[in-house]
Amino acid sequence: MDWLDEVKWDAQGLVPVIAQEVGSNDVLMFAFMNREALAKTAELGEAVYWSRSRGRLWHKGEESGHFQKVREMRLDCDKDVVLLKVEQLGHDSENASIACHTGRHSCFFHRLDAGTWQTVEPVLVDPERIYK
Amino acid sequence: MDWLDEVKWDAQGLVPVIAQEVGSNDVLMFAFMNREALAKTAELGEAVYWSRSRGRLWHKGEESGHFQKVREMRLDCDKDVVLLKVEQLGHDSENASIACHTGRHSCFFHRLDAGTWQTVEPVLVDPERIYK
Repeated sequence: MDWLDEVKWDAQGLVPVIAQEVGSNDVLMFAFMNREALAKTAELGEAVYWSRSRGRLWHKGEESGHFQKVREMRLDCDKDVVLLKVEQLGHDSENASIACHTGRHSCFFHRLDAGTWQTVEPVLVDPERIYK
Repeated sequence: MDWLDEVKWDAQGLVPVIAQEVGSNDVLMFAFMNREALAKTAELGEAVYWSRSRGRLWHKGEESGHFQKVREMRLDCDKDVVLLKVEQLGHDSENASIACHTGRHSCFFHRLDAGTWQTVEPVLVDPERIYK
């Protein structure tokens, strides 16, 4: 049986994917894959998602250069959620890994503090420098 | 503006939620919340999900005793995914934290190895001892 057939795709043919950084174990982002995206991810060794807004495959880093090298792929107990352990590439010669389109390390930069969402992670590189 | 109003609920009124263990930073599980579940989670300081299969609120641990004490709540850049940082309770006097209904630490216990999903995490407590 093909490993792709074991994944329980949802009604839209998608599976939720969590990207976690190897080493720090930080959760970087969350997205979806279809079967083709997951196959491509395994083939390339780099994360390829399905962009629901653009309706096409999205090779993470194709515009920003912030590719995700996949070190390990996990599937949960119900076989309907994927966890990628990735090496997150950053910008140019700078060392910091950047997963978020806002130029931050992780997409999860809002923290609930006393009943309001506060921005608690710095912008490492101005998005205008990333997407030009 | 209420912090719950800032969350971008999907067409079913749900938001995907990732539970990550404080300290180890291990990703433990993935589930959904509706507005009531997220409000309850904040109120109790323990994870309350929306069970899509049972169609009701699911106070994680209500059957197993494996409650999740919420130490921090995060929201992503698009405000449509929640990350909970939790202290995962285990079983009885044993120390190991157990998030998965299979008796394992994490739900993400299948690893893709040479084209097949392998089970790579041990069962810490027999589910028959957990659910009785």
